[in-house]
Amino acid sequence: MFIRKIVSEGLAHNSYIVGDGDEAFVVDPRRDVDPYIEVADDECFKIRFVFETHRNEDYLIGSRELENLTGCKIMHGSHLDFGYGEPARDGNVFKIGRLILRVLETPGHSPESLSFVLYSPGKNIPLAVFTGDALFYGDVGRTDLRGEENRVELASSLYDSLHGKLLPLGDHVVLYPAHGSGSACGGNIADLEISTIGYERATNPMLELSKEEFIERKAMETLMMPPYFERMREQNQKGPEILNMKRIKPMDATMVEDAIPHCVIIDTRSPLSFAGGHISGSYNIWMNGLSRFAGWIIEYDKDILLVTEDGENIETARRYLTRIGFDSILGYLCGGIEDWQNSGFPLEQSGIHTTSGLYESLKEKNDVFLLDVRERREYAQGHIPGTVNIYVGDLEKRLEEVPSDMPVVAVCTTGNRSGLGASILKRHGYREVHNLAGGMTAWKEKGFPTTNLFI
Amino acid sequence: MFIRKIVSEGLAHNSYIVGDGDEAFVVDPRRDVDPYIEVADDECFKIRFVFETHRNEDYLIGSRELENLTGCKIMHGSHLDFGYGEPARDGNVFKIGRLILRVLETPGHSPESLSFVLYSPGKNIPLAVFTGDALFYGDVGRTDLRGEENRVELASSLYDSLHGKLLPLGDHVVLYPAHGSGSACGGNIADLEISTIGYERATNPMLELSKEEFIERKAMETLMMPPYFERMREQNQKGPEILNMKRIKPMDATMVEDAIPHCVIIDTRSPLSFAGGHISGSYNIWMNGLSRFAGWIIEYDKDILLVTEDGENIETARRYLTRIGFDSILGYLCGGIEDWQNSGFPLEQSGIHTTSGLYESLKEKNDVFLLDVRERREYAQGHIPGTVNIYVGDLEKRLEEVPSDMPVVAVCTTGNRSGLGASILKRHGYREVHNLAGGMTAWKEKGFPTTNLFI
Amino acid sequence: MFIRKIVSEGLAHNSYIVGDGDEAFVVDPRRDVDPYIEVADDECFKIRFVFETHRNEDYLIGSRELENLTGCKIMHGSHLDFGYGEPARDGNVFKIGRLILRVLETPGHSPESLSFVLYSPGKNIPLAVFTGDALFYGDVGRTDLRGEENRVELASSLYDSLHGKLLPLGDHVVLYPAHGSGSACGGNIADLEISTIGYERATNPMLELSKEEFIERKAMETLMMPPYFERMREQNQKGPEILNMKRIKPMDATMVEDAIPHCVIIDTRSPLSFAGGHISGSYNIWMNGLSRFAGWIIEYDKDILLVTEDGENIETARRYLTRIGFDSILGYLCGGIEDWQNSGFPLEQSGIHTTSGLYESLKEKNDVFLLDVRERREYAQGHIPGTVNIYVGDLEKRLEEVPSDMPVVAVCTTGNRSGLGASILKRHGYREVHNLAGGMTAWKEKGFPTTNLFI
Amino acid sequence: MFIRKIVSEGLAHNSYIVGDGDEAFVVDPRRDVDPYIEVADDECFKIRFVFETHRNEDYLIGSRELENLTGCKIMHGSHLDFGYGEPARDGNVFKIGRLILRVLETPGHSPESLSFVLYSPGKNIPLAVFTGDALFYGDVGRTDLRGEENRVELASSLYDSLHGKLLPLGDHVVLYPAHGSGSACGGNIADLEISTIGYERATNPMLELSKEEFIERKAMETLMMPPYFERMREQNQKGPEILNMKRIKPMDATMVEDAIPHCVIIDTRSPLSFAGGHISGSYNIWMNGLSRFAGWIIEYDKDILLVTEDGENIETARRYLTRIGFDSILGYLCGGIEDWQNSGFPLEQSGIHTTSGLYESLKEKNDVFLLDVRERREYAQGHIPGTVNIYVGDLEKRLEEVPSDMPVVAVCTTGNRSGLGASILKRHGYREVHNLAGGMTAWKEKGFPTTNLFI
Repeated sequence: MFIRKIVSEGLAHNSYIVGDGDEAFVVDPRRDVDPYIEVADDECFKIRFVFETHRNEDYLIGSRELENLTGCKIMHGSHLDFGYGEPARDGNVFKIGRLILRVLETPGHSPESLSFVLYSPGKNIPLAVFTGDALFYGDVGRTDLRGEENRVELASSLYDSLHGKLLPLGDHVVLYPAHGSGSACGGNIADLEISTIGYERATNPMLELSKEEFIERKAMETLMMPPYFERMREQNQKGPEILNMKRIKPMDATMVEDAIPHCVIIDTRSPLSFAGGHISGSYNIWMNGLSRFAGWIIEYDKDILLVTEDGENIETARRYLTRIGFDSILGYLCGGIEDWQNSGFPLEQSGIHTTSGLYESLKEKNDVFLLDVRERREYAQGHIPGTVNIYVGDLEKRLEEVPSDMPVVAVCTTGNRSGLGASILKRHGYREVHNLAGGMTAWKEKGFPTTNLFI
Repeated sequence: MFIRKIVSEGLAHNSYIVGDGDEAFVVDPRRDVDPYIEVADDECFKIRFVFETHRNEDYLIGSRELENLTGCKIMHGSHLDFGYGEPARDGNVFKIGRLILRVLETPGHSPESLSFVLYSPGKNIPLAVFTGDALFYGDVGRTDLRGEENRVELASSLYDSLHGKLLPLGDHVVLYPAHGSGSACGGNIADLEISTIGYERATNPMLELSKEEFIERKAMETLMMPPYFERMREQNQKGPEILNMKRIKPMDATMVEDAIPHCVIIDTRSPLSFAGGHISGSYNIWMNGLSRFAGWIIEYDKDILLVTEDGENIETARRYLTRIGFDSILGYLCGGIEDWQNSGFPLEQSGIHTTSGLYESLKEKNDVFLLDVRERREYAQGHIPGTVNIYVGDLEKRLEEVPSDMPVVAVCTTGNRSGLGASILKRHGYREVHNLAGGMTAWKEKGFPTTNLFI
Repeated sequence: MFIRKIVSEGLAHNSYIVGDGDEAFVVDPRRDVDPYIEVADDECFKIRFVFETHRNEDYLIGSRELENLTGCKIMHGSHLDFGYGEPARDGNVFKIGRLILRVLETPGHSPESLSFVLYSPGKNIPLAVFTGDALFYGDVGRTDLRGEENRVELASSLYDSLHGKLLPLGDHVVLYPAHGSGSACGGNIADLEISTIGYERATNPMLELSKEEFIERKAMETLMMPPYFERMREQNQKGPEILNMKRIKPMDATMVEDAIPHCVIIDTRSPLSFAGGHISGSYNIWMNGLSRFAGWIIEYDKDILLVTEDGENIETARRYLTRIGFDSILGYLCGGIEDWQNSGFPLEQSGIHTTSGLYESLKEKNDVFLLDVRERREYAQGHIPGTVNIYVGDLEKRLEEVPSDMPVVAVCTTGNRSGLGASILKRHGYREVHNLAGGMTAWKEKGFPTTNLFI
Repeated sequence: MFIRKIVSEGLAHNSYIVGDGDEAFVVDPRRDVDPYIEVADDECFKIRFVFETHRNEDYLIGSRELENLTGCKIMHGSHLDFGYGEPARDGNVFKIGRLILRVLETPGHSPESLSFVLYSPGKNIPLAVFTGDALFYGDVGRTDLRGEENRVELASSLYDSLHGKLLPLGDHVVLYPAHGSGSACGGNIADLEISTIGYERATNPMLELSKEEFIERKAMETLMMPPYFERMREQNQKGPEILNMKRIKPMDATMVEDAIPHCVIIDTRSPLSFAGGHISGSYNIWMNGLSRFAGWIIEYDKDILLVTEDGENIETARRYLTRIGFDSILGYLCGGIEDWQNSGFPLEQSGIHTTSGLYESLKEKNDVFLLDVRERREYAQGHIPGTVNIYVGDLEKRLEEVPSDMPVVAVCTTGNRSGLGASILKRHGYREVHNLAGGMTAWKEKGFPTTNLFI
């Protein structure tokens, strides 16, 4: 289980991202939604839902922003006519990973106010509750924001929500409200880092009052009413304008599996890691070779899917591809190849030859096809005797020159381009493909023989 | 003078941003232009020009991207029909800050190829030359990219450009080419970090050849021709598609001065710094108070202009304003208030009172108007005897309650909100306005008297 | 109130830093203590105490490291003979800020195990409890680490601690244990982000057992016993070796006040901010001038105290001073000048002249002493008529040349060196000192007259 | 070739780090040497030399700091009695990578002043010269710092050094001086980013003078003499005090090879990457498992050598090891396993089984030894039929239970602990060792059979 509170400084506004397994939900996101996206990317969460506790007055809600970036669903109260999202009703239940979230209608701060009760996997008693502006630490929500005429009725509703819905959840329940100390949404919110239903029952002065006292107190309350609240209300009801953020989609193994038929996989890990295990059909282009070789190998109308070490460095890969005009990167394997393997999907392996190993085996017998994938002029300056030269950029067009019934050893300067060459051969069904680790650099370092003769 | 080489890893492509004073130009930008923008923001440069040495084949050019973000002009060769920018011709001269850049037509790699000769302030002899793909370190440009049929003619042109245009600049001239070692745009580019005309004359094997030998050598050259080059050529000729980057405009003092009539200035520095000197008419809202008070004070249809300490933290300010729906930030004072003062523009100062100073002066005589700008309920819990309470959010509407013929001392909890209050009074012509540094916190710390009595 | 959980990845070890006001304590710190130091620096906390719940087995404790860096006190259980720190006993009470922490002896995991009960300001009922290895989420501590022979007795103690000490705190109490899911210190710790006494009472299977069942279950438990646990035990008992970390001491206003007689204050803020308000006697050397002017002005045997904007950029200042051999920086004003003002300490102000203002006032009458603090050769190239030239580096030795009975206006190129000059004059009791904002740059920009004549 | 200018802000001091291949030298380092160390780490340079152009006056030299951290040699002029380093004399030649650096004695600024001439690989003509305080852009060095009595003689020497030694190097030679515009070490240093001998010959006014004029001009020069220069001189002559910086040594493949007999290699890459190729005898402990398993496996008195992906994340590894008391990390393979392979050193590979592959092969025949390395209680909750359970932490002590004459497949939850298990078996000579990629997670995901039966 994962719970992170995101505080908007200055507003004392709390939002939450809560996840389990590979799914997550967000409660009351602010408009600059990058923190939620960062958590989701780091933890490989798909954000499935945004839950709004109510139509906010003091900031613009980020629900539609997240919807735009992640495709999540937005849920809010049914007693207000929102221009977006869907209504959630008392008793509705949502499953996110193994977590259960149950909707509690808790009107009072506003008619449409909701709370959300969290259950941990397999347990029937509630662990925590997201209370929005109904119940804070040391205070309760305002009831004066829907006009003087509704204040008493809302205060009465709020009392019922507190005593009929929230307190009965049990003293042990952890409280996650929408605001902390210093907010304009509550006059006396306590400076606490955490609280529970039981702690509030014992210490929150607003919970000690009878219903009459409570309504009277709320009727007398005079709190600041910033003029921009009106604007926030309007925009939050219809849905604030979408900012133009971009994102490369994190994909889990199943999503990648589904996408494979329609796209090209570029695996940017080192040739050794690629040899250790990779997704069938991937091209192995090392990170720093992307700008140089993607344009040789990849067709511009194909969607690209990235596999990197640990699912990191996606931004670097994007930048290198953008530089030569590849703008349509479908997504990346979040969690890296580990996520793929742990899902039980098949891995391909390819072989590695060390220079000494190759040298010894060549001395014994000559039953491998040596393929030098460097440029003609590099090849001309010295290569392993017996190697055939096909430039890696041309390899896919000249496959008929490479026999498929014998082992192939790909060679370049250090092993990067030959790694790409090996991946191309594997893609086309060659069974036994090896990459010479360290390439001509290591070969020469060991003092093994080279020639300038062309084949 | 400022010269920064920006290398695109993987492509061995060099681009340059060169600046002087508050102006800069860029040579051959790549498409992911954020490094140029970052330099410009850090150094407070306006990017005035992009100079393209030729239509590139191996990457997408970032000229239009920069044009979109900065409004700069794009200059390129006149012997090709580009879909954007403007033609520059032999001998054209550009002034950037105190630097002079002179255009040299150096056809050969392509018919439209240009070089750009740099002169430092007030000197008639060239300091450096940007040679594009004409002259590299240890090699010269390719002549095979415009088709087999043009190869000889281009080689002949290139020879003439090298020996007739570039070498005559003088041995002492520093060389800034478009590619380094490892590029697909030259077969034998030397692994050097720097070079000069003279060093190339002495060491570059291509410069030792006679014209006949040179053409023959270039005619025989076989270099890689990646298939995506064709695509780069097409797109670079018409202008690549614009990516959607955003930017808050850095503005120098003159630009700010021009913008003032149409916009609102928010100065986010501390009240003490603001008191030390600020632009007349600014609102002083401290950074962490932006989300809270901008909505109280600033009208949504006004453009916002930011002043921050050293011109930094703009992104934080933008984020805080976005959160409550202010999306139109016109720009910020790049270089901070220092840039304003150094340009000789007028500064306003306001006063600071320390608690001891105020206490002593109140003991003597009572000729100041004490204005407590906190909320009613804070005021009710204890204030300096004799203070009048007007909440800072309401102050601009209740100015008639504040006398303009006596000194005013603004008070809040620590000095932030009273700083905003003081700035509002200054804006409206109040002459003697003081902020109580440390506010009620310091006042109580010193044990000075308070009261709960309302006035 | 501030609570931050610091998780040691891989070990699933939880430690906590808890603060209020300007004080904090840490529970069970790990040896790489930089996260606690960073929080303390960011929040301006003095770390007053480390509380150890028990002698740990699975990692090295960072208590002595923190003691070394902050001077805090270390408290641990009295039933083990530690080589450092002090014993805490049942019922001992500690005050940190406005928070109260009460010691609960909860033996079982080990004889010396403690829990710590947290009370928020002014409340008599507990808010949270740090349980160490006594009570986890979904499990309880191991009882097998003190040898097979003690296992039953420890299990019995643990049962009593749980049912006699911890559960009676009340269902509402939030639980902060020393380990999370995945730790070697518990076999079945639940994957929860938060829990309470009440939630554990309802869901933790170990709390449902009778005392007999509990002891039996613990007796049968087989958990991993990594061989390095032995080493951790030894070292944690005597206190692990201290790593050599360095730190510039964050100081609050009171500490700075106490230190002033023995040291020199360098205020690196901009001249405008300095003019707005500063500590009496400070030198105003702007950040980028530190390497250049500290050596002119500051004696090498004096301790240095830094004042920066918001208490930031201390590392930059340290670097600049190190570069010229100032190695003894005593500390810095954490929270910046705001912390000083909010404590009610006195502020000095100095004056600012704008160029226009100075020009106008000079036209009227000539009753100011114009002091140009630039180098001789800069002065020689043009200065304001009537200015006297004393280089800023020599000013402190030539004060007798500056009259103290008339206003002084300090002038340099932009206002930085004259800001330093103004601060030197203020230090020496000059009453009316002004800095020309924008200096000669702004003066010339406005076209005001200059001369080459020497005085 | 690699050249990076490191500018000390505020001092306008230039230092340089220059490298080729895996070696580098530094010219005139400042005392906060972290930038040189960072470059060396990034580029995998061994810093072989520090070259001092002269005893500096305006800052403390970082030579001994670098010597302490890297073991480099320090070279300086022979005409002053330094308390550290070694004298270099006119004509001495140093080889760094393929670069040549030739010493030029250029007295004048001081008697011991040196310049250093740089030659690129295989070329006989100079490319660049580091001139210290002899020749700046637009100015020459001061001659007044060794007392009034030596000023004329030094000016005469400087003239001879300029005209007899530096200018004759040739117009094409690039100039790298020790100071830029704004330094206290030159009155009129030009604001240029680059220059050459030829450009200076044409534009530097000091180079136009006859010897008599030159001496006369230098004799009249009045420059600032900050009092701390004296202190810098003293300390720089004897060698400034060493700061206490720490560093994990970057090692190239040869250094690692030499160290192997005396230490233990921990390879923190993923099991797939490890399987693709690793150094014989390494333990494969994934990064996040370091705190947990190093203590199980590694003896505390062994030196540790780290292999990480691309040679990165060393600081994270150090932190995880420190946490459990491993303080003696010898170094890390800079450049990662690629550096090892490119040097032609041998690589070991191990096998990977996918779940489907294993399932199919088990159906056919049962000739592998299935080894489940999880904890007993995990094993008890379900394992692959036929697997034997030996906990990974105990494996090295229970090797006799693992047959060495048949293939072994190691299994855990996802492949990390079994990767460690596989590396232990490889270390002990087991030939055919496979790791089950995805482990029981993938196995269950595919619905393959499990059992609770113990073997």
